[in-house]
Amino acid sequence: MSARNCSLIGKIRSSFRRTGIDGLIITDMTNVRYLSGFSGTSGFLFITRGKNFFVTDFRYREQAEQEVSGWKVFPEKGTRIHAIKRLVRITDIRTLGFESSAAYSFYRSVSRTGLTLIPVEGLVEKMREQKKLHEISAIREAIRRAETAFLEVKPHIKHGVRELTIAMRIEERLKKNGCKKIPFEVIVASGPNSAMPHARPTGRKLQEGDFVLIDWGGEADGYFSDMTRTLLLKGSDIRKQKKIYTTVLEANKKALSAVAAGIQTKQIDNAARDHIKKNGYGDFFGHGTGHGVGLQVHEAPRITWTTSSTVREKMVFTVEPGIYLPGFGGVRIEDMVEVGDKKAFVLTSLPKTLEII
Amino acid sequence: MSARNCSLIGKIRSSFRRTGIDGLIITDMTNVRYLSGFSGTSGFLFITRGKNFFVTDFRYREQAEQEVSGWKVFPEKGTRIHAIKRLVRITDIRTLGFESSAAYSFYRSVSRTGLTLIPVEGLVEKMREQKKLHEISAIREAIRRAETAFLEVKPHIKHGVRELTIAMRIEERLKKNGCKKIPFEVIVASGPNSAMPHARPTGRKLQEGDFVLIDWGGEADGYFSDMTRTLLLKGSDIRKQKKIYTTVLEANKKALSAVAAGIQTKQIDNAARDHIKKNGYGDFFGHGTGHGVGLQVHEAPRITWTTSSTVREKMVFTVEPGIYLPGFGGVRIEDMVEVGDKKAFVLTSLPKTLEII
Repeated sequence: MSARNCSLIGKIRSSFRRTGIDGLIITDMTNVRYLSGFSGTSGFLFITRGKNFFVTDFRYREQAEQEVSGWKVFPEKGTRIHAIKRLVRITDIRTLGFESSAAYSFYRSVSRTGLTLIPVEGLVEKMREQKKLHEISAIREAIRRAETAFLEVKPHIKHGVRELTIAMRIEERLKKNGCKKIPFEVIVASGPNSAMPHARPTGRKLQEGDFVLIDWGGEADGYFSDMTRTLLLKGSDIRKQKKIYTTVLEANKKALSAVAAGIQTKQIDNAARDHIKKNGYGDFFGHGTGHGVGLQVHEAPRITWTTSSTVREKMVFTVEPGIYLPGFGGVRIEDMVEVGDKKAFVLTSLPKTLEII
Repeated sequence: MSARNCSLIGKIRSSFRRTGIDGLIITDMTNVRYLSGFSGTSGFLFITRGKNFFVTDFRYREQAEQEVSGWKVFPEKGTRIHAIKRLVRITDIRTLGFESSAAYSFYRSVSRTGLTLIPVEGLVEKMREQKKLHEISAIREAIRRAETAFLEVKPHIKHGVRELTIAMRIEERLKKNGCKKIPFEVIVASGPNSAMPHARPTGRKLQEGDFVLIDWGGEADGYFSDMTRTLLLKGSDIRKQKKIYTTVLEANKKALSAVAAGIQTKQIDNAARDHIKKNGYGDFFGHGTGHGVGLQVHEAPRITWTTSSTVREKMVFTVEPGIYLPGFGGVRIEDMVEVGDKKAFVLTSLPKTLEII
């Protein structure tokens, strides 16, 4: 833990000159966890050229002692601003970097202390994009737990069963399989409900010809997984459903094949989107093709058409094209992929050929 | 729904003159839900003197149509800034209020559009402090679900059982009792672990003379509940445990008795804290005495010694004094209370006299 932290903190310090700061305050709790190992919900990091402090209040003192090593634990007595003032006095810094994701009210109250404040954009988020070995192991385990849960519940997915029942069973199995957290409420969306990319499960019963879109994730050691499968219920005329499914599946495969270190994230989105457009469904794929997954279910990089960045080795992200026809139904097929030096590894292992149940 | 929204939006508009704005953007998702009814995770509100827009992207279009009424649904195509620019053009506003809880990066990117930006602090949070009837009903139901879950699991709380097992059983029962969300990971902390006010359940087995601190909550219609009970396991010498428990229980009762509309929140904290200090445990009660509960588990008002505000009718908050002796153990007894016009109603109904099991 300690050695790992040192190299991360070294990286942060080496950015000080470029950004013109002599100290950095980290308030985003996921970044705090990434750098220090602390898994509580309140605390911050204060890093200067020579020292690094982990600051938390009374409630987390014991937890901090157990989880945090390689950091000087500094008590946050009274307000956060009060603690910052004391740290500034001790370390004699003048120009403090802060995360631009911090609340405006935080920025305003710190700026009243007379410090020069410099916003720092996505510094730790960028570091988190490329996963360490232990992180990839945790993500793989989170995927394994999620896939096991799905396979355990799958026999119960059939005509007449309610969306909510399926969602609850999956959550139960995720917990039983060792997930301490559920990364997000399991989505089970059937028939017209599947046309809402972020639907919440309802009391609706599965019917003939329904798509059943299931989007769920697992957890291991604080790391998450995220995947989607769409099943189809038998029906008298399911030709349209089949065409939509096939188009999404091909888009998913094209995007996965495009993944490689050195290309632009936009190229992955293009691979999926062009195929969907070509098949006439361009207006019905309104979200990006993927997102990074790690300590957060949604983190950098974003795989979309509006922004772009370079795909780098050890990134882990989703590839999840979809088509959603309002009032009719939708399909999404979501895998997770790890970028290797030569090729990409699809981490998700559940089959994705169309299953008609 | 529509009528309710109207009165809330009227209140917001009536604040425009005081703050010198002619439009307000609401980005906090809990505030968005409170004002519009939208329960998704992405969207914002844009309120001017004459119009009110609900803005969301493609993914939530169908959900918005189902949940949001009385708002003009405006599509967020491309970036959020792009949507704001279009709204500004339509409504011709010059001075835009924004929530000071918004990210600094959001403030910075909106300010680049040339609008004059005015931070607005806790406007909707203040409105949310005083609960409407339907909100109190939902909170009562969230409490009922949580208490039922506890009573169902209680027979299994005994010597040799692991903290994690108890926590998982409570979560299972919460779900079975209808909670769609678990407000926070159930805390089951035994023996020395109970000295950590925000401990996470571990594989530790309950032992003789242990405190077993259980902090959990329920949910109904998006509203939460939050409560804590501490049990004691039989042991050869539990005099110290009894003294600590009695002190916390008395502090809990004194604080509850102090609750009344018109007093200062600080007075409630004082009532608990003074009693704990008088008994020699002043150094071991490091957190505030309570917090508001509603659409968030922690919301305004805060009941603490560092800040103060006036207790008002229809507020709902926790009263939760505690004593935590590092290495030994801790006790917290947490109830929820509703402030009436004459007196206060304790909403939690589980007994709290010391139970030795």
